[in-house]
Amino acid sequence: MKQSALFYKTSKETPKEETSSNARLLLKAGFLHKEMSGVWSFLPLGLRVLRKIEKIIREEIDAIGGQEILMTVLQPKSLWEETNRWNEGIGDVMYKVKEGEKEIGLGPTHEEMITDIVRKNVKSWQDLPLKLYQIQTKFRKEPRAKSGLLRGREFGMKDLYSFHATEEDFKSYYEQAKKAYSRIFERCGLKAIVTEASGAGFTKDCTHEFQVEAEGGEDWVVRCPAGHFAKNKEVSDLKKGDKCPACSLKLEEVKTIEVGNIFPLGKKYSEQMNAFFTDEEGKKKGIIMGCYGIGTTRVMGAAVEVWHDEKGIIWPEEISPFNVHLILLSGDLKVREISEKIYDDLQGKGLEVLYDDRENKSPGEKLVESDLIGIPLRLVVSDKTVSQDSAEIKERSGKEIELVKFDDLARKISSLVKANVR
Amino acid sequence: MKQSALFYKTSKETPKEETSSNARLLLKAGFLHKEMSGVWSFLPLGLRVLRKIEKIIREEIDAIGGQEILMTVLQPKSLWEETNRWNEGIGDVMYKVKEGEKEIGLGPTHEEMITDIVRKNVKSWQDLPLKLYQIQTKFRKEPRAKSGLLRGREFGMKDLYSFHATEEDFKSYYEQAKKAYSRIFERCGLKAIVTEASGAGFTKDCTHEFQVEAEGGEDWVVRCPAGHFAKNKEVSDLKKGDKCPACSLKLEEVKTIEVGNIFPLGKKYSEQMNAFFTDEEGKKKGIIMGCYGIGTTRVMGAAVEVWHDEKGIIWPEEISPFNVHLILLSGDLKVREISEKIYDDLQGKGLEVLYDDRENKSPGEKLVESDLIGIPLRLVVSDKTVSQDSAEIKERSGKEIELVKFDDLARKISSLVKANVR
Repeated sequence: MKQSALFYKTSKETPKEETSSNARLLLKAGFLHKEMSGVWSFLPLGLRVLRKIEKIIREEIDAIGGQEILMTVLQPKSLWEETNRWNEGIGDVMYKVKEGEKEIGLGPTHEEMITDIVRKNVKSWQDLPLKLYQIQTKFRKEPRAKSGLLRGREFGMKDLYSFHATEEDFKSYYEQAKKAYSRIFERCGLKAIVTEASGAGFTKDCTHEFQVEAEGGEDWVVRCPAGHFAKNKEVSDLKKGDKCPACSLKLEEVKTIEVGNIFPLGKKYSEQMNAFFTDEEGKKKGIIMGCYGIGTTRVMGAAVEVWHDEKGIIWPEEISPFNVHLILLSGDLKVREISEKIYDDLQGKGLEVLYDDRENKSPGEKLVESDLIGIPLRLVVSDKTVSQDSAEIKERSGKEIELVKFDDLARKISSLVKANVR
Repeated sequence: MKQSALFYKTSKETPKEETSSNARLLLKAGFLHKEMSGVWSFLPLGLRVLRKIEKIIREEIDAIGGQEILMTVLQPKSLWEETNRWNEGIGDVMYKVKEGEKEIGLGPTHEEMITDIVRKNVKSWQDLPLKLYQIQTKFRKEPRAKSGLLRGREFGMKDLYSFHATEEDFKSYYEQAKKAYSRIFERCGLKAIVTEASGAGFTKDCTHEFQVEAEGGEDWVVRCPAGHFAKNKEVSDLKKGDKCPACSLKLEEVKTIEVGNIFPLGKKYSEQMNAFFTDEEGKKKGIIMGCYGIGTTRVMGAAVEVWHDEKGIIWPEEISPFNVHLILLSGDLKVREISEKIYDDLQGKGLEVLYDDRENKSPGEKLVESDLIGIPLRLVVSDKTVSQDSAEIKERSGKEIELVKFDDLARKISSLVKANVR
């Protein structure tokens, strides 16, 4: 994509009303547009990142047997009355509209809806197990939405639901999902700590959260430095300075962002909503359920909270809006021709290139903006580099600038970019 | 995908409460789940079709310079007050929620929002032209939502907005968009009639609708059989039997479904909302806008209205959930092995194959279900065909069954499927 045509506008000022790094940087670099507090539109750069996060999630969830569906935002009150949640618990934060005499909710979550779909389609043990997921927008009243993409009134979420005939089958899938989650966050450039959290009152088993260490986080995790113990501070009986039950090291407390969680739901919803199946002996039983959530927009916010410096964002490779930022720093026609050729060549190899072809910007402005936008690999072509048949390569996360001969450019970039290069 | 693992359930009964063919067939074949009238969840088969429609739209809109963004569902009242539409016109069908003292709308359309984004980012003629689009869910109160996917309270839409410095530039882009729309509908298997419609009160120019002839339609178009004249009956001064102004043939009236529309917006929104740019001479001017909508979910409904018979759906190739329906009609282990190999081979060639590997279904049930689901190409492997080193090929739209030798299968299928076969 040529930067002269890209719809974005960076800003020199930091948005004063924003307190979180992710909101400040994503606004400043032109990834987002703020509609209301906690309500963000995604501009082209931002949407590219979000789509990459969604792609990673789809690949990993498909790999553990997930089938994608798309449930609706509008949800009938009647379903929520079956679980007594219309006016309680999460019902408190549900936006509700009236149409004629009917009350309709805007989905803050989809357990009721998925259980309804499954009870109408699953009859026997032969229909199980079943894993269904969606990537959908959720809505929650959030009077104090202050943390950019970390806490929204309208936000993206992947929610996976699994349905099982036996507890063993559920448990084995729960462990699979836990591993898939770790892979997802790793690919998104996030080191997630798997922490035990509360059982939400309807299961003896504890649930698990995936927490990313970040200064801008809103949670606290008590953990063993060697990784033997990690609990959300809210539910931990041990605290900072206590000894790890496994290795006796002193526990520490870290500020974190919750990017995902997995829950054993047991038969809570299936029994409340009559989602039964007939087992091999003809007995009617409640379906055993699990649910597995990842905030897609929150992952984007968390990545910025973790990966930035004073100059701007430093995107993890797999979720960067582009693989390479090619920057032309010359008014010379011949130099421009060379950089256009590099642009075409790299794109021909399957790389996503943002090409700063603009004529009306100074070298300084271009480089400052490049650091702000945060594409992991920068390639500069100028009179000076061309005079040496070379381009300058710099990684956004590093300091070293390397002059690479044109002939060697493709090989060099392939070695630096993990993306699918042809 | 193996059919034994696919989440879907066909039904033998036609849903009585549905009057439209698309709702009846899409429910019966397991593509959709009804949440409320006009509110449909997409099950795996249905979501595959919707994603293909979206993919076609993205490709064609990207090709005419569209940049994808994602605006929000929640919209602040203040923006709608700038155009006086909060309580009037489309504001009448807007769902509204309250949070504290604040009123928030659920986007029935996004003109206000896009104009707000553009006025904050576009300053000079150098920032123009600009083409931004999104594929987003829209919400409209619709007390009589009876036509399946044709008329929803929650529905998918692609909306493109273009921004221009001059009328000439706008007009040239409007014609480009018109052509892109025709390509989109053609690729979706729909023959769209471009009809003139009313100017919606704020432009002298007429707007254009894309209407698909269908028994299940809700619109009427007056048209010349030779294609010289086509107007929505609502605005046509000529009627059935009148002579075509161009060729004197008698005009006819046909029932249609509107699948898209394109509107010159002029400066209506830019002037109401102060979306100005500075021209080359330094003069402040209102941006000239156009908007271009396609109902993504409606296109899916329209395709079913046009393409079905008494047995079920007949998907147009590019939007079919799968390219090939491979059906095993045998309990014999060797025959099963052969069909598994065909399944792997076809998938290896990049074809999307639904493979009916189920053991507990009769041949009759499998074939009836295949016709109902409507994948364009059916491949049957049975004891009989294997004894002749062959499989049976049948197109869903035709009657002829052809026995094709295994050796010739790949070539034969490549010749029938336009999809990107490796």
